[in-house]
Amino acid sequence: MGVIFLQCRKIAPMTEFDLIDKYFKRSPAHAALGVGDDCALVSFDPSQQVAITTDMLVEGRHFFAGADAFRLGWKCLAVNLSDLAAMGARPRFFTLSFALPDADEAWLAQFSRGLFALADEHGIELIGGDTTKGPRTISITAMGEVPHGQALRRDAAQVGDEVWVSHEIGGAALRLFERWGRTSIPTAQVEHFVSRMETPTPRVALGLALRGLAHAAIDISDGLTGDLRHILRASGVGARVELAKVPTAQLIRERMAGAERDLMIECVLAGGDDYELCFTAPRSAHARIAQALSELGLRGGVIGEIVSGNELVVADETGARVTLPKSFDHFG
Amino acid sequence: MGVIFLQCRKIAPMTEFDLIDKYFKRSPAHAALGVGDDCALVSFDPSQQVAITTDMLVEGRHFFAGADAFRLGWKCLAVNLSDLAAMGARPRFFTLSFALPDADEAWLAQFSRGLFALADEHGIELIGGDTTKGPRTISITAMGEVPHGQALRRDAAQVGDEVWVSHEIGGAALRLFERWGRTSIPTAQVEHFVSRMETPTPRVALGLALRGLAHAAIDISDGLTGDLRHILRASGVGARVELAKVPTAQLIRERMAGAERDLMIECVLAGGDDYELCFTAPRSAHARIAQALSELGLRGGVIGEIVSGNELVVADETGARVTLPKSFDHFG
Repeated sequence: MGVIFLQCRKIAPMTEFDLIDKYFKRSPAHAALGVGDDCALVSFDPSQQVAITTDMLVEGRHFFAGADAFRLGWKCLAVNLSDLAAMGARPRFFTLSFALPDADEAWLAQFSRGLFALADEHGIELIGGDTTKGPRTISITAMGEVPHGQALRRDAAQVGDEVWVSHEIGGAALRLFERWGRTSIPTAQVEHFVSRMETPTPRVALGLALRGLAHAAIDISDGLTGDLRHILRASGVGARVELAKVPTAQLIRERMAGAERDLMIECVLAGGDDYELCFTAPRSAHARIAQALSELGLRGGVIGEIVSGNELVVADETGARVTLPKSFDHFG
Repeated sequence: MGVIFLQCRKIAPMTEFDLIDKYFKRSPAHAALGVGDDCALVSFDPSQQVAITTDMLVEGRHFFAGADAFRLGWKCLAVNLSDLAAMGARPRFFTLSFALPDADEAWLAQFSRGLFALADEHGIELIGGDTTKGPRTISITAMGEVPHGQALRRDAAQVGDEVWVSHEIGGAALRLFERWGRTSIPTAQVEHFVSRMETPTPRVALGLALRGLAHAAIDISDGLTGDLRHILRASGVGARVELAKVPTAQLIRERMAGAERDLMIECVLAGGDDYELCFTAPRSAHARIAQALSELGLRGGVIGEIVSGNELVVADETGARVTLPKSFDHFG
């Protein structure tokens, strides 16, 4: 279809409205009014608070030019679902705005397939959007629900809490460093790390399970230490983390003992884009959280504890303090 | 401040978090949790539906490179408020995502001033956002409230309805054509038409006044005939419009009788970016709507009527049918 379109587009180009109708308009399942009016209309459950997040992805910054469209559609929504997960919210509705250099139907077909594959997994409904010509940029705003008082906020960590990470981290950064030529990945493992970077799994089910168990939570998008620091700053506490306890891929762990140690530490502590959750919880919740992780097939665990003060200390295998690599900053 | 920043930015650059804190973070007035967590948390009134809209503005497409930052901040929010107005919704919350080529503080200070100037006029609260480096692109998602069953939808026009336009249209397009060198504007009137293009006034108060009076409504962003056609298609009706009744600036009306007739008709019928409302209402509501327009200082009025069929016919001063200019389409 893409090829036919490309051949005949000068004769019968699709308008932006055709594109929206063809690839993004579906009958609303939960919205009172979905795509196609000035606004969507939805009702939320009054016993719940509405959790709202927004993320923008820019070509060349968040994804490579020529990135697979299916995976990109998935990822654009995944990063927003990850924010809902980190709040303990159940996904409900999202809007999608994007700029594209041209109305490439083959690309849109794949992009929308990837987007809806993840949306359908989580029962979240696309209710509106905006399409324009411009440098490839995708902006999604997602809405979820969480019962009053049960949201996992950043400012709720308490001294004595255990600090958890939901699953292995550093893998997305390893793939990025490989693309940049700074390291290599054995052929048999490339697909694993590509998936970590390009089709992250938002930990929505875990976020829901953590309601009433965890105190504070954040998703790891910019790097563990940078993101954990947001919790510490908001909660007015410090943390002590053990590098050896941070869950990561076996390949990264092995290389951490060798010549690439610094780069691997950077992957694990400062590598963004894994979209695992970092959260704090009282020791009394330990067994239930460990069980929830296990039931979800996640190899996460406790990486340290919340302490008084405002410092983040990461200790290596010998107990020595690790010099923390810089977390990602878009204007840094 | 901008200058100082530019001088010292290599020594002490602001991070994206500093930028958000400095220019966009305020204490939440109505949100339970505002900017600074994974999500914002808000509660909506259960007697209301939530109206949600999103718009993305791209440099070179929706605004000129070098556009005044204050006016741009205003306009980015205005186009979203206009969608809420066209739904009869009361503005409540919005999110803001943007890509910027660099962290230009002088620009951000002006942009945020313009944004909040309009936000404060309407009591709408910024609850979250995302900042990244990239081609200058701004994406806003706005949420408002409207009582169940009172939203002004596109699919509610009825045969016999009068078709209204809220105020003069075509002015934004005139300014655009002047920028493109296709026409001129007398010096004394330039500022008027610049304002029409760069700082449109979303008709929120009118949208609220039209609840229970109007049947269908849309905001004129892509051009009168194109936008009215959305109502006709959604409602399964046609319309007959009289060109002479469409409210427009005196300058445009005068020129419509001369050599620039075709260009002026294009401004009025196909010029987007005015963000006036086009709506349909039963004749029984005529007096109350006319009074609402008058109280709001708007020079709008009835431009035609809804008829059976699916055709849009615009008649000129002699009753002859006007060949309709093409409305704006981003991929056209």
